[in-house]
Amino acid sequence: MSWPARVRLVEVGPRDGLQNESVPVPTERKIEFIEALAASGLRDVEVTSFVRPDRVPQLADARELFAALRRREGVRYWALVPNARGLETALECGVTHVAVFTAASEGFNRANVNSSVEESLARLKPVVADAIAAGATVRGYVSTVFGCPYDGPVDPARAASVSRVLLDAGCEELSLGDTIGVAAPPAVERVLAAHDAMGVPREKIALHFHDTRGMAVANVVAGLEAGITSFDASAGGLGGCPFAPGATGNVATEDLVWLFDESGVECGVSFAQVAEASGAIGEQLGRKLPSRARAAWAATRMRGTS
Amino acid sequence: MSWPARVRLVEVGPRDGLQNESVPVPTERKIEFIEALAASGLRDVEVTSFVRPDRVPQLADARELFAALRRREGVRYWALVPNARGLETALECGVTHVAVFTAASEGFNRANVNSSVEESLARLKPVVADAIAAGATVRGYVSTVFGCPYDGPVDPARAASVSRVLLDAGCEELSLGDTIGVAAPPAVERVLAAHDAMGVPREKIALHFHDTRGMAVANVVAGLEAGITSFDASAGGLGGCPFAPGATGNVATEDLVWLFDESGVECGVSFAQVAEASGAIGEQLGRKLPSRARAAWAATRMRGTS
Repeated sequence: MSWPARVRLVEVGPRDGLQNESVPVPTERKIEFIEALAASGLRDVEVTSFVRPDRVPQLADARELFAALRRREGVRYWALVPNARGLETALECGVTHVAVFTAASEGFNRANVNSSVEESLARLKPVVADAIAAGATVRGYVSTVFGCPYDGPVDPARAASVSRVLLDAGCEELSLGDTIGVAAPPAVERVLAAHDAMGVPREKIALHFHDTRGMAVANVVAGLEAGITSFDASAGGLGGCPFAPGATGNVATEDLVWLFDESGVECGVSFAQVAEASGAIGEQLGRKLPSRARAAWAATRMRGTS
Repeated sequence: MSWPARVRLVEVGPRDGLQNESVPVPTERKIEFIEALAASGLRDVEVTSFVRPDRVPQLADARELFAALRRREGVRYWALVPNARGLETALECGVTHVAVFTAASEGFNRANVNSSVEESLARLKPVVADAIAAGATVRGYVSTVFGCPYDGPVDPARAASVSRVLLDAGCEELSLGDTIGVAAPPAVERVLAAHDAMGVPREKIALHFHDTRGMAVANVVAGLEAGITSFDASAGGLGGCPFAPGATGNVATEDLVWLFDESGVECGVSFAQVAEASGAIGEQLGRKLPSRARAAWAATRMRGTS
């Protein structure tokens, strides 16, 4: 077993998590949440999305949020933008780290943004270029890399070709998403091999797993074994899956911090501080968050048993 | 990645799962559960325990259960026995597959059976011998292999020495238990290496993970990579952890069947049949069982999206 000595967690709870929660969270509570996450040692926090408020009402306060957020030195605050209009607003708000998104499958992309993947990529290229010209750093999300709720299996080579276009467009990093949580470790290997074949360097790849079927931590381990050092996660395991109501959302930040701590992999994040931040947002949402490491911590308030 | 082509699941839900559920289950419902599990393709089912009814009231009906159980050809029905008295009763009931147990740590063994590990092993040796003399097959559980709720970290060499004694006593298989769910993949490697050093063959080892901190599937993968082919699991993820109230129990059978199916590893078990069996017992217990693969299946009732 030869794992990286150090990894980077990209916290997506405030965006990917809260976007999939049915209970709205007041802007002030979101800001407290984001500030607590940044204080825990997380250096990348995706805080919101500049999409149409009627599409994602949970994140309709993106402007107010950025206006009020106190930024911490050394932390990258990311915002998702769907198009040129979203980018414009984001830049007006002082966003310096933007994420664009498309999918590896036609069915999902059509349902999500009502266009083909080719059309999406053509529309995103100038957005990425404009963002870079404005001095921003750009991350590219590729959804449904491991399977599509409409089209079923996805060819890893197809996913890699989408990644390649986003990389060539200027994205600093690609986040490969298992949107519906169907990946298992061998699929992670296949997808990474397809990216190798397409000339996408592994250091440009982040892995983004949903724990819908309980495989997310094992998939992160498969990524570690393949030398991947960036992983997306959401505090507490916030969020859900619109394609499997009642199922789990993103892999929990606490579960990955536990994994890294126990495995001697440095991630620079305080487990207890993330768990406290999740606790507050869970109370706000009125539900027990799915993170198992967090639940064990909350039950015992001690971690000295390993 | 070179994983075994075929693995064996040991279903422990009716025993390790139900023993840790607070709601009692009528004998008849247990029998339906066990028969449904055996019909799903599981070839090893641990059905109950012949311990003192005042210690584990949930399993006080062991005699009645064995008397009424219709056995399926080719299925091994296991029962846990703590001592000579338990073995005697089990044999009277026609049990042919018995499991004995001790721990790798003094603190846990003292709390569990009020004796040192050495004393336990000395007491178990004649029990194993008597069981074999009566024609039974014996499995040995070693608890707290990866950490103890009382003593903290456990030396892998100490755990391996306990395994070695049980193997020499005549156990056909050793089940190495992460009783409190603190293992991560590197610890799995360390424990298996210690067993190598102690001359315990890997084909004699089963791994028994609790998903208390969300690591269980990743730990099973670590086992697969090390060539282990037997894994304990409980349908639906039944059970809990007495040392972390509210935390998750055994790794869910459905989560492992999903992992194996998606990874091209044959396990001979029908996901849907196990999920149906768990559903019935979950209704009986009046709670949503923790298996994530099961929850996704129940939400979508389709598995064709990967």
